[in-house]
Amino acid sequence: RARVGSVVESNRFQLFIIGVIVVNAITLGAETSTFLHAEFGPVLTTIDHLALVIFTFELAARLYASGWKFFKDPWNVFDFVIVAIALIPTAGPLSVLRSLRILRALRLVAMVPSMRRVVTALVRSIPGLVSLSGLLVLLVYVGGVIASNLFGDTGDPRFSGLGPTLLTLFQITTGDGWSDVMRDLMGQKPFAWVFFLVYLLVGTFTMLNLFIAVVCSAMQE
Amino acid sequence: RARVGSVVESNRFQLFIIGVIVVNAITLGAETSTFLHAEFGPVLTTIDHLALVIFTFELAARLYASGWKFFKDPWNVFDFVIVAIALIPTAGPLSVLRSLRILRALRLVAMVPSMRRVVTALVRSIPGLVSLSGLLVLLVYVGGVIASNLFGDTGDPRFSGLGPTLLTLFQITTGDGWSDVMRDLMGQKPFAWVFFLVYLLVGTFTMLNLFIAVVCSAMQE
Amino acid sequence: RARVGSVVESNRFQLFIIGVIVVNAITLGAETSTFLHAEFGPVLTTIDHLALVIFTFELAARLYASGWKFFKDPWNVFDFVIVAIALIPTAGPLSVLRSLRILRALRLVAMVPSMRRVVTALVRSIPGLVSLSGLLVLLVYVGGVIASNLFGDTGDPRFSGLGPTLLTLFQITTGDGWSDVMRDLMGQKPFAWVFFLVYLLVGTFTMLNLFIAVVCSAMQE
Amino acid sequence: RARVGSVVESNRFQLFIIGVIVVNAITLGAETSTFLHAEFGPVLTTIDHLALVIFTFELAARLYASGWKFFKDPWNVFDFVIVAIALIPTAGPLSVLRSLRILRALRLVAMVPSMRRVVTALVRSIPGLVSLSGLLVLLVYVGGVIASNLFGDTGDPRFSGLGPTLLTLFQITTGDGWSDVMRDLMGQKPFAWVFFLVYLLVGTFTMLNLFIAVVCSAMQE
Ligand code: NA
Ligand code: NA
Repeated sequence: RARVGSVVESNRFQLFIIGVIVVNAITLGAETSTFLHAEFGPVLTTIDHLALVIFTFELAARLYASGWKFFKDPWNVFDFVIVAIALIPTAGPLSVLRSLRILRALRLVAMVPSMRRVVTALVRSIPGLVSLSGLLVLLVYVGGVIASNLFGDTGDPRFSGLGPTLLTLFQITTGDGWSDVMRDLMGQKPFAWVFFLVYLLVGTFTMLNLFIAVVCSAMQE
Repeated sequence: RARVGSVVESNRFQLFIIGVIVVNAITLGAETSTFLHAEFGPVLTTIDHLALVIFTFELAARLYASGWKFFKDPWNVFDFVIVAIALIPTAGPLSVLRSLRILRALRLVAMVPSMRRVVTALVRSIPGLVSLSGLLVLLVYVGGVIASNLFGDTGDPRFSGLGPTLLTLFQITTGDGWSDVMRDLMGQKPFAWVFFLVYLLVGTFTMLNLFIAVVCSAMQE
Repeated sequence: RARVGSVVESNRFQLFIIGVIVVNAITLGAETSTFLHAEFGPVLTTIDHLALVIFTFELAARLYASGWKFFKDPWNVFDFVIVAIALIPTAGPLSVLRSLRILRALRLVAMVPSMRRVVTALVRSIPGLVSLSGLLVLLVYVGGVIASNLFGDTGDPRFSGLGPTLLTLFQITTGDGWSDVMRDLMGQKPFAWVFFLVYLLVGTFTMLNLFIAVVCSAMQE
Repeated sequence: RARVGSVVESNRFQLFIIGVIVVNAITLGAETSTFLHAEFGPVLTTIDHLALVIFTFELAARLYASGWKFFKDPWNVFDFVIVAIALIPTAGPLSVLRSLRILRALRLVAMVPSMRRVVTALVRSIPGLVSLSGLLVLLVYVGGVIASNLFGDTGDPRFSGLGPTLLTLFQITTGDGWSDVMRDLMGQKPFAWVFFLVYLLVGTFTMLNLFIAVVCSAMQE
């Protein structure tokens, strides 16, 4: 066990795995090109299968070396999920999982120490943001139900039901093309601007504070 | 009185009220779906009425327990206004108030301590922003009157009167589609870009400082 | 002199002037409405003239009370320019100055102490930004000449000459609709995306640092 | 050598070079105008050639004065590259280099001390951002391969191959018109919103942290 562990942890082996990740990321990118797919399809598929085999063996070796402690490190869980997704047969309704094979490239984050530190810092800042994010989700939901009641009868496809309305409110929260949405509505609902003005002011102010909370918690570290 | 107060303040009762708020928020969301409204309309309406009855009794109990001190806590005033809006008959011109029933979901903010703290912090940062916000309102007004004078005769509906012009200036302040507005004007008014350039530079600079004021006041706490 | 000074500085007189500014701002806003202009045109014009007379006398009194020291305070210079603009006859090519009469409303900033402090802080932060702003202007100019050389022959009106190109680059710097501009060009110039990618990365990075410079200098105070 | 060095470093000479840079920047801007090009073409070209000669001699003098130490200062390398680009014959496929002649105007940054300090600060902040920028590039790549797999068969030109898809993802990262891209896709792929929602939340969160990293590192200095 200790020997397997020392091999898996060795710099050489880690560099080899990084190489496999990079090569695999490139072949998965190449496969999206119809030309490269037509010319080198079998080669790309072989490399892809080979990379998966290597990842599976590496994971098995690390699992064997660490035992159940393996799952205590969230980075290991991440690697495990990535490989598990790739091993699920992707026929029928699960075929969308095929598109997610490229998520393996994110293993690079776990392998490169400086990136690993950055992402660890990112993830650690999340708990402090739960309350404000919850508030934003609540705002979008409340705004969505109000907008659905106010504009649902206009026939605008962006407000045809609660789902599309929530998506539209998310769009307005990001500020992308909100004035077009409003002006399209104002032909039928001349007071639509009241809703947009209030929603934008409240939403922007909350987002601004979410942002400040991130800055402040980042500075304390 | 003390007994009513201790019941109302008990963890169990608070959890029950949180449950009612969440269920009510979901049913109000479900009502916006024409399908769910047609199938389960009476059920949803009944739940909605029931929730309102519970909220009214809860409010009455808290009011009875605290006496006039009740209105000293702004969170209580907020709860009171929310329930009062729901009790106003919503016929005729006030039918828009029906859309605001979902605002009850915001009571969740008052019930969950971590959210309550976040919103208290948000609200406390407002007084420090009054001067800069007043400056921004003044800028939009001054810009609106100038734009109305300069572009009112172009026939562009976005500048047909002071109201639409002020709305357009708010749009430009958020940066959404300002270049389309400018280019549409420049056919008739080749120097429209001077107004947009000056307004955007002054407005962005002021907003930036508004933002910094929020950050600074947040950091002092 | 001292007596005139004490009258002009008295709280009562200042409140009276604030009142005149607000009333004048409202009447200038009302004049933009064709309906209000048709119904109450003469009244609005009379109030406007009256306000100008009051402002002129007030300025004369303050000038008389302070002597040449008057022009040492930049707020006084601002008031002087505003009134001077209003007194210039606005016939012919200067008719655009009529639109600027509403700038008088900005005198409110000088009269309300809290706003005055905010604007003083804004203006004081400007010198520290000269270098970075100069860098941004240089970037827009260099980008504009390159874009003019690269895209001037496409027939796109947004790149027909250095003036329109500089305006378009300012638009891209604010991020408004830059992808539309790029996609329209890429039909004729397939490598236009290189220019946009480089310009956006460099420009955003510089603007980000301009922003940070403002935050830092604001925090030192 | 010392004498050449003292001449080149003298204030007078530096001001002369700044003058040449500014004049050259203006003539290069003037050349983009078809009218000015037609009227004063030979004059502008002469000034341009003269400026290049001056720059070449200045560079040679500074190179002679400093010896190989010259290339230790990155600002000197910058000046060298700028002049070298201008000296390459710009016929055939290299004609695009002609558009880059205006980059000489950036020499102004090296000549004006306050700008030089600002850019030095900008450049120094880059190493601290390599990890987070690498993460962003990885995110865009992973997102691009997934989007290519999911939306490549829709016939939307913005997703026709990995190159255009990566460009579209960069566009979405800047927030410009992302909702139009999504709505166009949702006709054929009703669940496209899932991809956009996840990508925007992850991307914005990462960018926000990139931003905070810049602010923090700037404040420590
Ligand atoms: Na935008
Ligand atoms: Na936009």
